[in-house]
Amino acid sequence: MRRTVFNEDHEAFRETIRDFIAAEVVPEYEEWREAGQVPRDFYKKLGELGIFGIEVPEEYGGAGETSFKFNAVITEELARAGVSFGGSSVHTALCLPYILKYGNEEQKRRWLPSFVSGDLMTAIAMTEPGTGSDLAGMKTTAKLSEDGTHYVLNGAKTFITGGVLADRVLVCARTAPATPEDRRGGISILVVDTTSEGYAVGRKLEKLGLKTSDTAELSFTDVKVPVEDLLGEEGKAFGYLAHNLPQERLGIAVSAYAQSAAAVEFAKAYVQDREVFGKSVASFQNTKFTLADCKAEVDAMQAVVDRALEAHDAGELTAADAASAKLFTTEHAAVVIDKCLQLHGGYGYMMEYPIARLYADTRVTRIYGGTSEVMRSIVAKSMGL
Amino acid sequence: MRRTVFNEDHEAFRETIRDFIAAEVVPEYEEWREAGQVPRDFYKKLGELGIFGIEVPEEYGGAGETSFKFNAVITEELARAGVSFGGSSVHTALCLPYILKYGNEEQKRRWLPSFVSGDLMTAIAMTEPGTGSDLAGMKTTAKLSEDGTHYVLNGAKTFITGGVLADRVLVCARTAPATPEDRRGGISILVVDTTSEGYAVGRKLEKLGLKTSDTAELSFTDVKVPVEDLLGEEGKAFGYLAHNLPQERLGIAVSAYAQSAAAVEFAKAYVQDREVFGKSVASFQNTKFTLADCKAEVDAMQAVVDRALEAHDAGELTAADAASAKLFTTEHAAVVIDKCLQLHGGYGYMMEYPIARLYADTRVTRIYGGTSEVMRSIVAKSMGL
Amino acid sequence: MRRTVFNEDHEAFRETIRDFIAAEVVPEYEEWREAGQVPRDFYKKLGELGIFGIEVPEEYGGAGETSFKFNAVITEELARAGVSFGGSSVHTALCLPYILKYGNEEQKRRWLPSFVSGDLMTAIAMTEPGTGSDLAGMKTTAKLSEDGTHYVLNGAKTFITGGVLADRVLVCARTAPATPEDRRGGISILVVDTTSEGYAVGRKLEKLGLKTSDTAELSFTDVKVPVEDLLGEEGKAFGYLAHNLPQERLGIAVSAYAQSAAAVEFAKAYVQDREVFGKSVASFQNTKFTLADCKAEVDAMQAVVDRALEAHDAGELTAADAASAKLFTTEHAAVVIDKCLQLHGGYGYMMEYPIARLYADTRVTRIYGGTSEVMRSIVAKSMGL
Amino acid sequence: MRRTVFNEDHEAFRETIRDFIAAEVVPEYEEWREAGQVPRDFYKKLGELGIFGIEVPEEYGGAGETSFKFNAVITEELARAGVSFGGSSVHTALCLPYILKYGNEEQKRRWLPSFVSGDLMTAIAMTEPGTGSDLAGMKTTAKLSEDGTHYVLNGAKTFITGGVLADRVLVCARTAPATPEDRRGGISILVVDTTSEGYAVGRKLEKLGLKTSDTAELSFTDVKVPVEDLLGEEGKAFGYLAHNLPQERLGIAVSAYAQSAAAVEFAKAYVQDREVFGKSVASFQNTKFTLADCKAEVDAMQAVVDRALEAHDAGELTAADAASAKLFTTEHAAVVIDKCLQLHGGYGYMMEYPIARLYADTRVTRIYGGTSEVMRSIVAKSMGL
Repeated sequence: MRRTVFNEDHEAFRETIRDFIAAEVVPEYEEWREAGQVPRDFYKKLGELGIFGIEVPEEYGGAGETSFKFNAVITEELARAGVSFGGSSVHTALCLPYILKYGNEEQKRRWLPSFVSGDLMTAIAMTEPGTGSDLAGMKTTAKLSEDGTHYVLNGAKTFITGGVLADRVLVCARTAPATPEDRRGGISILVVDTTSEGYAVGRKLEKLGLKTSDTAELSFTDVKVPVEDLLGEEGKAFGYLAHNLPQERLGIAVSAYAQSAAAVEFAKAYVQDREVFGKSVASFQNTKFTLADCKAEVDAMQAVVDRALEAHDAGELTAADAASAKLFTTEHAAVVIDKCLQLHGGYGYMMEYPIARLYADTRVTRIYGGTSEVMRSIVAKSMGL
Repeated sequence: MRRTVFNEDHEAFRETIRDFIAAEVVPEYEEWREAGQVPRDFYKKLGELGIFGIEVPEEYGGAGETSFKFNAVITEELARAGVSFGGSSVHTALCLPYILKYGNEEQKRRWLPSFVSGDLMTAIAMTEPGTGSDLAGMKTTAKLSEDGTHYVLNGAKTFITGGVLADRVLVCARTAPATPEDRRGGISILVVDTTSEGYAVGRKLEKLGLKTSDTAELSFTDVKVPVEDLLGEEGKAFGYLAHNLPQERLGIAVSAYAQSAAAVEFAKAYVQDREVFGKSVASFQNTKFTLADCKAEVDAMQAVVDRALEAHDAGELTAADAASAKLFTTEHAAVVIDKCLQLHGGYGYMMEYPIARLYADTRVTRIYGGTSEVMRSIVAKSMGL
Repeated sequence: MRRTVFNEDHEAFRETIRDFIAAEVVPEYEEWREAGQVPRDFYKKLGELGIFGIEVPEEYGGAGETSFKFNAVITEELARAGVSFGGSSVHTALCLPYILKYGNEEQKRRWLPSFVSGDLMTAIAMTEPGTGSDLAGMKTTAKLSEDGTHYVLNGAKTFITGGVLADRVLVCARTAPATPEDRRGGISILVVDTTSEGYAVGRKLEKLGLKTSDTAELSFTDVKVPVEDLLGEEGKAFGYLAHNLPQERLGIAVSAYAQSAAAVEFAKAYVQDREVFGKSVASFQNTKFTLADCKAEVDAMQAVVDRALEAHDAGELTAADAASAKLFTTEHAAVVIDKCLQLHGGYGYMMEYPIARLYADTRVTRIYGGTSEVMRSIVAKSMGL
Repeated sequence: MRRTVFNEDHEAFRETIRDFIAAEVVPEYEEWREAGQVPRDFYKKLGELGIFGIEVPEEYGGAGETSFKFNAVITEELARAGVSFGGSSVHTALCLPYILKYGNEEQKRRWLPSFVSGDLMTAIAMTEPGTGSDLAGMKTTAKLSEDGTHYVLNGAKTFITGGVLADRVLVCARTAPATPEDRRGGISILVVDTTSEGYAVGRKLEKLGLKTSDTAELSFTDVKVPVEDLLGEEGKAFGYLAHNLPQERLGIAVSAYAQSAAAVEFAKAYVQDREVFGKSVASFQNTKFTLADCKAEVDAMQAVVDRALEAHDAGELTAADAASAKLFTTEHAAVVIDKCLQLHGGYGYMMEYPIARLYADTRVTRIYGGTSEVMRSIVAKSMGL
């Protein structure tokens, strides 16, 4: 069905992105994958292209767009080409909303121009070894110095995407202990300079997929963080954290849809190209039916995602809507991409084929941004259960 | 998410339909189900309510609506109440489009006013014992009499929904033999008066579900059909038959969605009401997660159906779009309704509970209007496979 | 794979049963289905054939077999023919084990000979409206009379299979109130004569499937039950109830396997017989692959069931093993039978086809004898979770 | 259920293997995984342990066992520990049967002692770039020299597991062209010395999983192969290739079962150890139900595999039985292992956790040894479809 969600601006942007990916990403991608990250200066190119500034107001060097649809376009084009922009999705999708919403004027002026240019890359550090999604249980502490000029940060974080290359990391830490009455109070966000003394990047974690995203453990030993780098109010971070979740989950839903659509295209091209027993693989009824099933699923995902994009732009996307969209798209993407890999036969198991990479990449969509189990809890709660 | 597909008129219509169902259908439904059909005079009530005339132009006594959304509203409200209007869906959803599109002015004036009032109920007879979906293989013949005043109809049909109560049946028959070059040529539609001599209703077929729809075998022995009752041109019917399929399949998709949404509501009400081991069934995590999964599926079906309704009203719903929507919604409805039945425990197996009836009813949606296998073929073809 | 579970005796028995079913059941089955039960005197024929006496010791008129495999043979042959013995499965599968294990010598001598001959048909009444699987919550009471000669039974039961035709019903009732310390104590089994005053059969319940099994509500109003008809010890019934569950669940697993195997045979015969578009349905790759998938599932179910039959005969089948086998076979039977129905196209929705009846019948296997949810709880517990 | 498939010898062997794995494999495994292969001298250790000689007759230095169950024990123990023996499974599981069945006395005496000791590692090269499972379409040629002393081998192979470390590779090549009457004739097996001139190992292929198995492309440029290294008769290899397939597929079925059983254990340990929101993950009903479902699947796989192992040892395992067992176990392993990964949350995506490696490893079981689609074709054919 004709999509009505994108206008001419979005489609023009799509062209630009598509060309950029073809010229700057595809030829390098194999190398990045082996390196386990993108080169640092690639982020400068993304900055020049304006990718990091889409949603940043013009006064700080950005384009001041408010529609999330540009993000969706990027996601779709990356999936179509079977590549990614490395860990930088975190920079715009996860970090920027906090800076925009909770950063003060001085901070925005200080950080955003270089954020937009790619000179200052950001990551966000919430999860700790052993606490998982239970953020209130975090153990990293940030104690205000006696003279009140800085916090002293101690602790460790894990699963930090973009953590190897980041210049600044939004670290969630306890500035006050939890109390039985308010487990969630006392958590703050500090925007930590990664060149600070006592700041260390631990192991780069080897993941099943997302091989060009640098994911790391971080540790903090008496790291001094100036009070000017506190984001928002002290002790209020727990409330902040929920704020961006619907958009984050919508982004994952878009990604799951886009990966599925790409997988169908990869499989279609493969089966049309490939012969077995003197016949095109595409000519077998099983191939046709399997791809038709996948197509119907992709059509449904598209309908879900497009509706959610409209709702989000209209400010109407609820937490439950976003959870439902993420749950549906990611669970079905798993099925679609698995079937498309199977149609590739042995080649589907070779990492040089994009379908193998998609298979490994897509597995995390049911886990990050809140697991499918968390999505079910949210949806159930919204049903009054 | 807020639905944008219905306007105030549709919602006002929904209220009317909802009240009518509550007053006129729900209290009688158990009896109808036992009888295996609705009473003939119930169709007069539907006629009075205007149900049959929605899409009929005003000059023939109808409301002249062109949007299919009113039909969708009816489908949704019937599912919500766990009931049906018997075999009359065929009257408007399947027969009317043929009469409107291929009937001549004289025929429309002759048939439509009583079509609208419910005095003249229609059914359509395509399938024959042993031919199934291969319509070109049909064996029923209609030979023009020597004086050219009437056709002589001979043959048998099966799976005719509404066939017991119909006053006129649109019978597809061969007016000329198939040729090797044109297997599909030579088929015509006759609008046969069911009181004609030689017309006989055979067994009422016992179906797994759809218990209030009368489904029958028909046989024709030298039935005289006036040439005035030929619909459209002689020999052109095969081309006509495909014409209405996208709308028919959209209707089934709406129904699969609506049944799923209703199933979730029935299950939710049941688990909230029911206790086991001193706890509400709703309080178990398995219950919550199962219903959340179902809800996410229903949300997706709604997105698919709403988008298809818009496309259909805009004249843009392709055969492949409709096939994709039917395939997706009916396959997933099966899963959703099965899970909702399971949550009812032993009560789910009792036909007095609407979930048991839905389970039996919904099974046919993957078969009629073209099986899921046919839908896959259509979608695959549209992909260039 | 060659089955090793049955010996020559079992296979000879299979021949007998197969002939009996072909001669005495198949020709009548349509009529029984319409009547909603088998004729009472058919049970006499089953008695004559020795079906009811297989596991009854010789001194009470039975064959004294201890292997459950004969039961499995009957189940397999019934499924193969697409029929059932009505509600009588309860007579042997559910009631007999209680009588054999907890009946005293006098009771066995009084009841078993006519149990074997089919003159005394039994049913068992546990579930009450509103309590479901929470047996400890039952409200039916049996108060010992002051003279100690009889109990006075009051209450109501539901979902009683065989309840219309039974001569004696094993009624679970509270002979003493539950205490907070022992919710499960105080429940006894009375073998109630259904001709007693105050005993009433309520509605025959309309089920989704199992149409030849009479399932009813029962009510008891001051029914006098002689103390001689107490089965086992007063107040100990809760412990008894668990005793037979593994065998009951094994029986359901066998049934789910046998139904699946039969469904594959029905579908295979149908697709080989049927043509569409001038080709045998069996010649389509989708047909072949679908049936191959079903066959692999059936092979696995057979492996599960055969291993469980051996373990049961060896006295080693644990509650968790039986739960695992029931869970696996019934959940997969649902998928297999659904696919086999789909291969029948429109005919699969017609109750005259055995696949439609199987589809409706098999749905209850995930519910009765303990739902799949209960099976999961049992298996999880056995894993130490 | 108690397994009856293994006797005391098997269980004693299991202990040995388990200890060996714990001492020699687990501590090194991370390193091997990074290297993308096991160290060459590890194969000497396997040789010393007797792993390679189990099925080799005593006169050639082996143990002369004829039961495949010892292989099954190794597979189970490797899965349990979350490791593998690298590409050496090909050495015993795929290459040995050809040498044993088709090697002549001289060849056996020449090769088998060092085969057993691990000094002579073997691989097998069938698949070519672009031909996939259509072996008859292979293009590698072996032309007999004019003096009849050697073949001249030219061509390329791909997906050769063990291809990097092998000393001898069983290369399938055309010694005579295919004819329209006999596409399958003219193929021979040459046991090529990998130090021969013109023999080259191309790229080591990067796979989704099986990271310790070296998989490579091979190319042959005028490689001289002495006629003494022809295995079996010239031109008869196609017939040979089918011979070992049932055992190969049984091996994969055992592996899929063993991986699933291991996945359940990994997940169980994880959820029992892990807390979220102050509760053990194991305490959630969703966790329990998910693991119970997995357990029931694993029980069924075990029943399938054990039955097939018995049939195989009895010489009764047909091609269709093996295909059915492979199809069932590998398809269900995918579901089980996916669920077990999900229960690990974010840790399930980290390659240091065995569940992530299992997830990647198990994907190939639906592809190699014949895809699930090929299995379906075999099963369907055996059904007469």
